[in-house]
Amino acid sequence: MTENIDGFVIDLDGTVYKGRQVIEGAADTINRLKRLGKRLVFLSNRGNISRKMCHARLTEMGLNVQEDEILLTSTVSANYLKKHYEKSQVWVLGEQGLKDELAVAGVMLADKPESADWLLITLHESLTYRELNDAFRAVRHGARIMATNADKTFPGDNGDCIDVAGMIGAITASTGREVDVVIGKPSKLMADAALEVLGLPPERCMVIGDSMESDIQLGKNAGMRTALVLTGSIKRADVEASSVKPDWVWDSIAIL
Amino acid sequence: MTENIDGFVIDLDGTVYKGRQVIEGAADTINRLKRLGKRLVFLSNRGNISRKMCHARLTEMGLNVQEDEILLTSTVSANYLKKHYEKSQVWVLGEQGLKDELAVAGVMLADKPESADWLLITLHESLTYRELNDAFRAVRHGARIMATNADKTFPGDNGDCIDVAGMIGAITASTGREVDVVIGKPSKLMADAALEVLGLPPERCMVIGDSMESDIQLGKNAGMRTALVLTGSIKRADVEASSVKPDWVWDSIAIL
Repeated sequence: MTENIDGFVIDLDGTVYKGRQVIEGAADTINRLKRLGKRLVFLSNRGNISRKMCHARLTEMGLNVQEDEILLTSTVSANYLKKHYEKSQVWVLGEQGLKDELAVAGVMLADKPESADWLLITLHESLTYRELNDAFRAVRHGARIMATNADKTFPGDNGDCIDVAGMIGAITASTGREVDVVIGKPSKLMADAALEVLGLPPERCMVIGDSMESDIQLGKNAGMRTALVLTGSIKRADVEASSVKPDWVWDSIAIL
Repeated sequence: MTENIDGFVIDLDGTVYKGRQVIEGAADTINRLKRLGKRLVFLSNRGNISRKMCHARLTEMGLNVQEDEILLTSTVSANYLKKHYEKSQVWVLGEQGLKDELAVAGVMLADKPESADWLLITLHESLTYRELNDAFRAVRHGARIMATNADKTFPGDNGDCIDVAGMIGAITASTGREVDVVIGKPSKLMADAALEVLGLPPERCMVIGDSMESDIQLGKNAGMRTALVLTGSIKRADVEASSVKPDWVWDSIAIL
């Protein structure tokens, strides 16, 4: 069914692994696609880790993925800032992984909230009031707001957890300012970044993911084929109820 | 000018003290009003401290105020819950002072987020991600949202700081739920609570405060006389530009 597809844009969480567990058959599928000469890019809305951290994690899981086949929102945020706001200073509300990715891209960090041109928000699982207040101060002193993604929740070990939308909400509600840029899927920014890595036109590519709103929507917007996998939180009945229809619905990536 | 006024509703922060400093003449004014037999209630949107903590602080500042003359949003939230939702279990996103005040009123605390009927949010200056996530879980499991107040900022030692609106924004943005009840000024709840303490009808009372939105608006809504003091963040020019007009504008509470 995918004979004329040369590039695959593959979501990570819920598609390739779930929590700390690799999805059964995912490693074989990746190996087979590579043997067939297909190009792959792994696209995730995670913005709190660097590609290096993500690569180490995938390797540890026994997955044959190269660092330059990984695109996170931390990566794309860093590249976006470097490309469009090279002289800007950035204040981060988030974790070290994002700061590492900014450093790789050569983005300047502000040395205090008051000097920031941009506040960049991502998930921060060890957030403190003080950090929240620093981010607030950056915006009160004129920084514009960018977010790696705007997901409301992510699946944690003990159920869903509060995600980047919570961090964004704290800042926008207290400052009265809106978010200027959200980098994450289903944005054109993420689709373009993926197609650039693949070096292929969208009609020769397919998105595989577990989220209608981010993965399938990104594929639809960009003109790629789309396959929804049911290894994440979505069920077949949800797909039938949805107005957006993926080209394929698979029990898992192993079907491919 | 205030001959026929028998009750005074007096704001604390910006009116009686500012940061750790008593406003010049405030202590004398309070003593003189008490000698004249006037009734006083001190009304604050602070929800993260208990009356006991507030009373200790005022006493330390040399102010002649009794504990039962103090009404904080922590107090009024606790009384509101006890009166209207006696059997409800409450989860707190906030500080010990609020929990103390709930205990005084006999409000039941939930032993885990999942069992809460209400999430009660106040300022939390040592907030962590884990606490934010617990609050998120309470709401995801059906708890309704109450906030002691919805102030966006409060004046800290090094400039304005992120206030309760930030904590509320984190929860509403990530859960998609709205706040059900905001207790703080200028609400009728706070006005009624103040009038109950004074035991007087509104036309014999005056509000003195430094905020147009919370103090003066509360007085207007409730039919009390209003005096704005300029010892807080507002300037005389702001008053002239505002559509709400206080009955008096004073340089400070000492004028009285």
